[in-house]
Amino acid sequence: MRLGNVIGHVTLSRQEASYRGGRFLLVQPWNAANYSGDDKPQASESTLVVYDQLGAGVGSIVGFTEGSEAAKPFPESTPVDAYCAAIVDKVFHQLPK
Amino acid sequence: MRLGNVIGHVTLSRQEASYRGGRFLLVQPWNAANYSGDDKPQASESTLVVYDQLGAGVGSIVGFTEGSEAAKPFPESTPVDAYCAAIVDKVFHQLPK
Amino acid sequence: MRLGNVIGHVTLSRQEASYRGGRFLLVQPWNAANYSGDDKPQASESTLVVYDQLGAGVGSIVGFTEGSEAAKPFPESTPVDAYCAAIVDKVFHQLPK
Amino acid sequence: MRLGNVIGHVTLSRQEASYRGGRFLLVQPWNAANYSGDDKPQASESTLVVYDQLGAGVGSIVGFTEGSEAAKPFPESTPVDAYCAAIVDKVFHQLPK
Amino acid sequence: MRLGNVIGHVTLSRQEASYRGGRFLLVQPWNAANYSGDDKPQASESTLVVYDQLGAGVGSIVGFTEGSEAAKPFPESTPVDAYCAAIVDKVFHQLPK
Repeated sequence: MRLGNVIGHVTLSRQEASYRGGRFLLVQPWNAANYSGDDKPQASESTLVVYDQLGAGVGSIVGFTEGSEAAKPFPESTPVDAYCAAIVDKVFHQLPK
Repeated sequence: MRLGNVIGHVTLSRQEASYRGGRFLLVQPWNAANYSGDDKPQASESTLVVYDQLGAGVGSIVGFTEGSEAAKPFPESTPVDAYCAAIVDKVFHQLPK
Repeated sequence: MRLGNVIGHVTLSRQEASYRGGRFLLVQPWNAANYSGDDKPQASESTLVVYDQLGAGVGSIVGFTEGSEAAKPFPESTPVDAYCAAIVDKVFHQLPK
Repeated sequence: MRLGNVIGHVTLSRQEASYRGGRFLLVQPWNAANYSGDDKPQASESTLVVYDQLGAGVGSIVGFTEGSEAAKPFPESTPVDAYCAAIVDKVFHQLPK
Repeated sequence: MRLGNVIGHVTLSRQEASYRGGRFLLVQPWNAANYSGDDKPQASESTLVVYDQLGAGVGSIVGFTEGSEAAKPFPESTPVDAYCAAIVDKVFHQLPK
């Protein structure tokens, strides 16, 4: 699971028939600055389109899974490779000094 | 799912017997400039060959899935690792200020 | 499997129903300095959220698996893509001179 | 699928029992210069060992699949993660101006 | 499959119950210099822990598979994501001039 900020969404004009009931969010994975607690998300090469059924919105911090596990909760033929599995409450760090 | 621009296609002289009925598109994944709304695609190291059955063409913005989920809609023995799952209508951003 | 230092954890406000009985650790994968034996972990872009059932804590060195094998020990529908598979005792190096 | 140039091959002294009937090719994935049509392959960090049953040789441009789909055409217990799925005839580009 | 040099091993204090009968090797994937035939391995960010049953040791050049195919030869619940599939005899290059 990686953490990321929801920064927008995508609408589709034609699509794989097996998608339904969810939304496609634009998610910006966290970088070093985010993990250090002080920075805003920026659109970058690493921005992903993540399938969401939990109701995350712009401003949410989400935990998303990638790869074939992302599709675990779906019927066999749905091609989903990034899935919003959790909305994050708090992140605790204890970097050694 | 990642977003990308279709920039061409590929023809094959010999191939895995299980490929049929689709086309292989050259897709350039979006970078930071594309996500900021102002830039044209450029061929780069990250260019991929994506299997398409939706009818995307040069100029389309597509959403493609990667990894084993890409092959979800295919019979068990088809080796497809990048699949055009959607043609994008609109992308909405709301980067925080 | 990759090695990493546990540097914190995450709590969730909403989540995939199939997660339970484990904790989500923040893990910093080892870099070149760590493999050379002399450095402390630093939060970076590569920090991951890893599912743990072995009881690792801040300060542990863990071996984590990624991708669909990470989910091997779980029921079919659990989306886990990084899994704490081992707590490391010792790392032996013999770089050729 | 990614495109690459065949630049050599590998022989093995001990191996997984399930490999047979194929060859292991050294393949250099295409970079930006290759996609722009003007450059020779160079051995780099990204060079891969790809399993081939189509008969590609040094000088061929191949399309190879990666990840678990690479192993789709094989029996369940064969660990293949890069598979030569096609020999490329022509690559067509139309980068927008 | 990627090539790499065995540079050490790892011992574990607590682990996933399904691991047994193998050893965990530290493997340094080949970089451009290695593929050009002239360089020693160096510990780096890309060092991996690879499961071995073939008997590779420090100094061996191994071919390892990654991702879910790495786990193909194992029972369904073993989380292995990098597997030593072959010990390499010779590597033949023919870079075009």
